[in-house]
Amino acid sequence: MLLKKMMLASRATVDRLPIYYRSLKEAMQEGIEIISSEELGRRIGVTPEQIRKDLSSFGEFGKKGVGYYVSELKRNIGEILGLHKQWNIAIVGTGHLGWALAHYRNFSEMGFLIKALFDVDPAKQGLEIDGVAIEPINKLAEVVAREQIHIAIVAVPSEVAQEMTNALIAAGVHGIWNFAPVKLVVPDNVSIVNADLSAELATISYQLVHRDATQKV
Amino acid sequence: MLLKKMMLASRATVDRLPIYYRSLKEAMQEGIEIISSEELGRRIGVTPEQIRKDLSSFGEFGKKGVGYYVSELKRNIGEILGLHKQWNIAIVGTGHLGWALAHYRNFSEMGFLIKALFDVDPAKQGLEIDGVAIEPINKLAEVVAREQIHIAIVAVPSEVAQEMTNALIAAGVHGIWNFAPVKLVVPDNVSIVNADLSAELATISYQLVHRDATQKV
Repeated sequence: MLLKKMMLASRATVDRLPIYYRSLKEAMQEGIEIISSEELGRRIGVTPEQIRKDLSSFGEFGKKGVGYYVSELKRNIGEILGLHKQWNIAIVGTGHLGWALAHYRNFSEMGFLIKALFDVDPAKQGLEIDGVAIEPINKLAEVVAREQIHIAIVAVPSEVAQEMTNALIAAGVHGIWNFAPVKLVVPDNVSIVNADLSAELATISYQLVHRDATQKV
Repeated sequence: MLLKKMMLASRATVDRLPIYYRSLKEAMQEGIEIISSEELGRRIGVTPEQIRKDLSSFGEFGKKGVGYYVSELKRNIGEILGLHKQWNIAIVGTGHLGWALAHYRNFSEMGFLIKALFDVDPAKQGLEIDGVAIEPINKLAEVVAREQIHIAIVAVPSEVAQEMTNALIAAGVHGIWNFAPVKLVVPDNVSIVNADLSAELATISYQLVHRDATQKV
């Protein structure tokens, strides 16, 4: 039943789950034990109706007239997102963006551990970031297998992004987070998310253009 | 009428508009002149019903039984997002992430121009990235005014993120893209988007956990 319902969760709903998760975590840190959909919505700029609808895709949460138990809902959403597991991450390409992502501290608290780094530049090979050495591309299959990499961040130039992605998939990676501004082709059993930093800026320009016509979102 | 309707566009709809925009741009580059909601949906993993519903928030687009005129729809969505204007961007903090964002090439093609960089580190001041010099924080108000900065990217440590944000707003910035993992308080007339890189990874872990139960999204 739960599983059947999950199949119906829309991409928009799934995109909001990590935001709920983070907000619940903050509420927990503030010592809040019970939260209403109104208060949760206020914190993240989503209507309470939307929250109730999103959560109903996955089962019954919260108590009518009471609200949601913060730690329970956080745990449940975490399990839906797979955050109760540890995910081993590789970064391919340690240019400016890959380098910054390798130093990003907030991945590990969600269970995402950077376990492998790759770069084509011989000058970078052997350099370590947080104890993880940068390896040459020809060791990709070996290191992906050894470190049991689940998800790879592709941060290489567009021209080589598909080739790197193919190599990662051949090595057993099933999740790709693509920062190259190119459309990658992957088999159906591989999950891919295209990072689009400009898209986030465009939601700000939207708000600025419509500031007088819209409520703050 | 158009403006009134815009007020009703949900945040989820607004978040999808840049994805539509980018996909239409790709379609244009491929020489496609007319596209159906089915084909557009297939390209970006959204149902055709969702696309039609999203676009109906803003007016009437496309022709029944024909589809959308690609360049016209791209232009319309661009205008809704404010991409027909030039947006001047400042980056505050040129650590790993700010440095990478300052080098990111895909902002300018959407009309987002990096016009100012700030860092507290005297060793960095005077360094240039793409012709923009890194300025000290005490020149923030002066440079924001001179460069007519609309949007600021806050990429400083959490402890100083609120202080920097206050200074930016006092200097006239109305849009904040916050990369510090902290909740910033801003006045109602300032638009803020919190970047959450872990959240995107969590949508991949969701897909991997539910891979057998869900269709590829």
